[in-house]
Amino acid sequence: MKTAICDLLGIDLPLLAFSHCRDVVVEVSLAGGFGVLGGSMFTPEQLETELAWIDDHIQGRPYGVDIIVPERAAALQPGVSIDMDALLAAIPAEHRAYVDEILAAHGVSPATQTGTDGLAFAQSIPAPDELLDVAFSHPIKLIANALGVPPAVMLERGKAAGVPVAALVGAREHAIKQVAAGVDIIIAQGTEAGGHCGEVGTLVLVPEVVEAVAPIPVLAAGGIVTGRQMAASIALGAAGVWTGSVWLTTPEAETAPHTREKFLAATSRDTVRSKGRTGKPSRQLKSPWTEAWAQPGSPEPLPMPLQTLISEPALRHVDALAASGHAGAQDLATYWVGQGVGLMNEVKSTRDVVYEMASDYADAVERVARTLD
Amino acid sequence: MKTAICDLLGIDLPLLAFSHCRDVVVEVSLAGGFGVLGGSMFTPEQLETELAWIDDHIQGRPYGVDIIVPERAAALQPGVSIDMDALLAAIPAEHRAYVDEILAAHGVSPATQTGTDGLAFAQSIPAPDELLDVAFSHPIKLIANALGVPPAVMLERGKAAGVPVAALVGAREHAIKQVAAGVDIIIAQGTEAGGHCGEVGTLVLVPEVVEAVAPIPVLAAGGIVTGRQMAASIALGAAGVWTGSVWLTTPEAETAPHTREKFLAATSRDTVRSKGRTGKPSRQLKSPWTEAWAQPGSPEPLPMPLQTLISEPALRHVDALAASGHAGAQDLATYWVGQGVGLMNEVKSTRDVVYEMASDYADAVERVARTLD
Repeated sequence: MKTAICDLLGIDLPLLAFSHCRDVVVEVSLAGGFGVLGGSMFTPEQLETELAWIDDHIQGRPYGVDIIVPERAAALQPGVSIDMDALLAAIPAEHRAYVDEILAAHGVSPATQTGTDGLAFAQSIPAPDELLDVAFSHPIKLIANALGVPPAVMLERGKAAGVPVAALVGAREHAIKQVAAGVDIIIAQGTEAGGHCGEVGTLVLVPEVVEAVAPIPVLAAGGIVTGRQMAASIALGAAGVWTGSVWLTTPEAETAPHTREKFLAATSRDTVRSKGRTGKPSRQLKSPWTEAWAQPGSPEPLPMPLQTLISEPALRHVDALAASGHAGAQDLATYWVGQGVGLMNEVKSTRDVVYEMASDYADAVERVARTLD
Repeated sequence: MKTAICDLLGIDLPLLAFSHCRDVVVEVSLAGGFGVLGGSMFTPEQLETELAWIDDHIQGRPYGVDIIVPERAAALQPGVSIDMDALLAAIPAEHRAYVDEILAAHGVSPATQTGTDGLAFAQSIPAPDELLDVAFSHPIKLIANALGVPPAVMLERGKAAGVPVAALVGAREHAIKQVAAGVDIIIAQGTEAGGHCGEVGTLVLVPEVVEAVAPIPVLAAGGIVTGRQMAASIALGAAGVWTGSVWLTTPEAETAPHTREKFLAATSRDTVRSKGRTGKPSRQLKSPWTEAWAQPGSPEPLPMPLQTLISEPALRHVDALAASGHAGAQDLATYWVGQGVGLMNEVKSTRDVVYEMASDYADAVERVARTLD
């Protein structure tokens, strides 16, 4: 296949795959797509290990790194020193108590008494510039930023290294700002997407953004888990697609088994755009956790990054209990996923997903072309 | 062009156009698409006049009628007699007062003192079976129902007359129910749509519904205002598209001039899915009216059809004032429109819209086909 993004990244299939799991990254790139490692959950040492492993296994195929995870972007601009104690002190007692109340209602011990109330988590957050040092010491072919305009240091280092910088947007106006800042590839992510997203549907956002930033290449994102949706994205003017959710149910992904089961069973209506995880609206699987933050009378979710400091440790605690069979924790468990989850109904290997998307793409192109016969 | 819906309806272009304006219906059908008259705002006598005019002007080209407007569906099933006085008595004083408060804040006289508080409006609502009598006395080629499973009488009359019955759905589960009830064409309408809509994006909903109801033809709807989006819809497996918003800015549509201006200026983020107009979530242009119903502490919108009985007369009163230049009323004015409004930036004749969509469609198909060269 041939699109602007295939030429730019040296790939056969205009399919970019975001994953926190190195195996997914490698398998996608080996199958002709382009794996992007979500790097911000790692310490610099861990990221080094992951990228070295990728270099050892990817047979020279291109891959990329996504560095600043959305929920920390606000606090973690390079050069801004973060006072974690001050951050933690800024969390109202009401919110800590509410988290404990949600957990208790599902038989889960309170986060405040299990060392999971944010301090250890906050202390583990690496500075993004250290992660950038690691990323640029590897032969990456793309660096991406998931929320807001990339920090200047990322844009400069990308330019210096000849590595295109990509950024996600949920609105036409943001795309224009990103391009003005020097971003090379725009990822137009519709409201269907897992994680942080806006309110505009992919089918409207993509042509809007393409028109606004041409000739900058635009990747379509949000709800895309099949080849027919890839073909639709190209029809809309995108140069390729950016995917995330679809890899979460592959055996190569380190998705918690109880969460994978929930994903396989979920319909497209089982996700919700909620502020309850990070303080900004992000799409995730509905669970009693997301419902608790939408309840009338519930505390208003805290601004970034404070909500993460109460939700993330609690939900990791929940995941650990869920993995050991705790029914209440399994009920509470949730993770970011897009509306495409309704089309993800069986476990397939990463390579099979890529191959099926390629073949489904070709069928869809055929179907469209035939209408003009 | 050739798709299942072109064959079924005898049209050249798989483009269905919903409009309350007979001129739009005729122009779309004459240009090779398929016009569908939204008939439920009319009395039986008015509908007869409109359809007779269409028959006189459409040169034998096929067209359809959409009968049960969403906001009345709940109360207006055939055979259910409606006690309008009881309905009006069921509207809490708090809601009447709140409407007057919103109007007063914009210098608009209170609905309760201007004979626009619902009674006259409620009395003007025709029974849908009388509208069906009128519709089936004309050579319609499609009858559509906009919310919920069509009443049995519509399905039976459609079958007897050999007229396919279409129904709108916003979820896979609803599509399955509709097909089980005997519906011939499913309109899978994503969250981008103007009017009543669900939460699932068109890009996800269409392939989900297509897979669930095959071989029943599916029309894609929600945000579709360009040919590239038509091509995307066919790639997703749809047999064609169902459009509404895009016709509102044509000169043939009877859109109020101040509303047309707002539409032309709006971006895709200027719409909101709100219960404030009908009691069920429907997408409309943001205005102080929609904001008032989202305000913390505002009364919860009433269930269908009660909210319509307070909102519709008030907003018609607002539109009348706005048309005469009342600034507060122009500010308040709103109407149903989808996120595609962001792509609707100039006034074009209905025929030009059709021709541009056809040509943009062909370009998009080319673009997609070239990727496999």
